[in-house]
Formats: sequence, structure tokens, C-alpha cells
Amino acid sequence: MSVIYTSPEDAEDAFYDAIDRGDLDALMSLWSDDDEIVCIHPTGQRLTGHRAIRESWSGIFANNTRFKVRFERRVCWKGVIIAAHSVVEHLYVGGESTPHGPMLSTNVFQRGANGWRLLSHHTSAAAEMSSDSRGDADEKQPRTLH
Amino acid sequence: MSVIYTSPEDAEDAFYDAIDRGDLDALMSLWSDDDEIVCIHPTGQRLTGHRAIRESWSGIFANNTRFKVRFERRVCWKGVIIAAHSVVEHLYVGGESTPHGPMLSTNVFQRGANGWRLLSHHTSAAAEMSSDSRGDADEKQPRTLH
Repeated sequence: MSVIYTSPEDAEDAFYDAIDRGDLDALMSLWSDDDEIVCIHPTGQRLTGHRAIRESWSGIFANNTRFKVRFERRVCWKGVIIAAHSVVEHLYVGGESTPHGPMLSTNVFQRGANGWRLLSHHTSAAAEMSSDSRGDADEKQPRTLH
Repeated sequence: MSVIYTSPEDAEDAFYDAIDRGDLDALMSLWSDDDEIVCIHPTGQRLTGHRAIRESWSGIFANNTRFKVRFERRVCWKGVIIAAHSVVEHLYVGGESTPHGPMLSTNVFQRGANGWRLLSHHTSAAAEMSSDSRGDADEKQPRTLH
């Protein structure tokens, strides 16, 4: 793939666009060549390496009605060769107008010869009403074991 | 706090050590001064900023029997000022010899005037039997919606 993403944001936009289109090749082209790339799904599956991650997304695209992800970048940290984003995702399945989620993702990127690419995509389900708690919320904390 | 952590690993060791000791001040000293620090718990709570994160961990330490975290760094990516680690955690509650978990964490660090500090700690529960799937596993995939 010859596309060079000049920012982590560009790579991230292309990643979610590939999900929206169900385009597995495009999706996989967004990952770094690093052997140790990591993808953690909301189901708790932790996948490492291109082969496992490709198989996983292939299964997701095969099993689901097409879905679209609307995402909000909440925080972006950018270094010289490593960047990380904290993202909130809303999933629209099929033609539904009400989103599923939200999901919380931490995306880590690396800058290499081909620009910025994904090293890690870690997603988990958000608790309701707590997707952006800032400490002045008075909601009760569930009993949390770390 | 005057301790300077010269590597993300040192900061991470100190972070988990503070958890093990239930030491809230030590735990909070491990975070960057960045206003936008993020902590995502396995319950799906997403907390941003020092105040919210402190309150959250204060609640965790108050609500739980002391617990210890044994962690394995699976992958470390290190840049000049940003680093990220993919970690698998096993929780030992009270005197139990069988761990809870595993939990999966993505920890993001920033190097500043005081050395390396945490920017983001994102933890979610691992699916059983899939904490290190490498694609040659033949387990059935659960129906995954992203």
C-alpha cells in the first residue's frame, strides 16, 4: 500500500472508514508492519499479529450486518514517532438510527516509512452515563475491582 | 513528588506497586500533570483528570479487600516522549492463591520534566482462553460486534 498518512488522525479516519465500508484489505493496510500489533475487542479477545487480527475482523464483517462507527476523539497525545488517542465510539448497526455503545477505544500509532499506522486498538464497552465522567459527577460508583 | 522515573517500565512498576499497597498518594503521583489524563476501568467507567481519577481509586481502595496485581508486559512501544505498553494483569484478592482476571491493559506514558508518567490506563476484562491469541488458535469466535 502506497498511501502515506501524515498524521495519526488521518490514519484513524481511514481505519474507521474501512470499518464502515467493511473493507478488510483497507483495514489491514492501516496497521503498522510491527509483528506485535495488538487488537483487543469489547468481547475481551486479545489478538496479536497481522494474521490473527485479519481473521478476527474477517469474522466480524462476515457475522454482522454492515455497521458504521461514529467516533469522537476526546484526547490526542502525539510524540515524534508514537501517538495515542482516547476515542469514544458509537455504533450504528444496519439502518438503525439509535447507536449502540458507547465504546471506549485507546488507539496507539507509530510513525514509520509509510507515515502513521496503528500499533494497538483496544476497545471496551462504556458504562452507561459514565463515558466522560469528570469527577464532579455524583453518580454512585459500582463496586469496582480495579 | 521528586521521584524521576527514567523509563516507562519504572513508572509502570511503581504504579502497580502503589495499587498493591493501596497507596493513593503514590498512585496519583505516577500520573502526568496533563489535564486530560484518562483512566478506563473494567466496569466501563471512563474518568478524565486528576480529581475524577483520584476519587475513583479512593473508592476502589475503600471498597475492596486489599488486592495485588501481577502483571506481564506483553509489548512495549517507546518513542522519544510517548510510550505505550500492552499488559496482561492477574488480580489476587486478599489472601487468595487463584487469580481473578486476566485483565488487559493499555498503558500510555509521557516523558516530561519529572521523567515518565502515565497519561492513560485503559483496562478491560479478557475473554477466557484468548488472552494471547495468535491466529493459529482454532477456538470459535464469539459473535463480535466490533
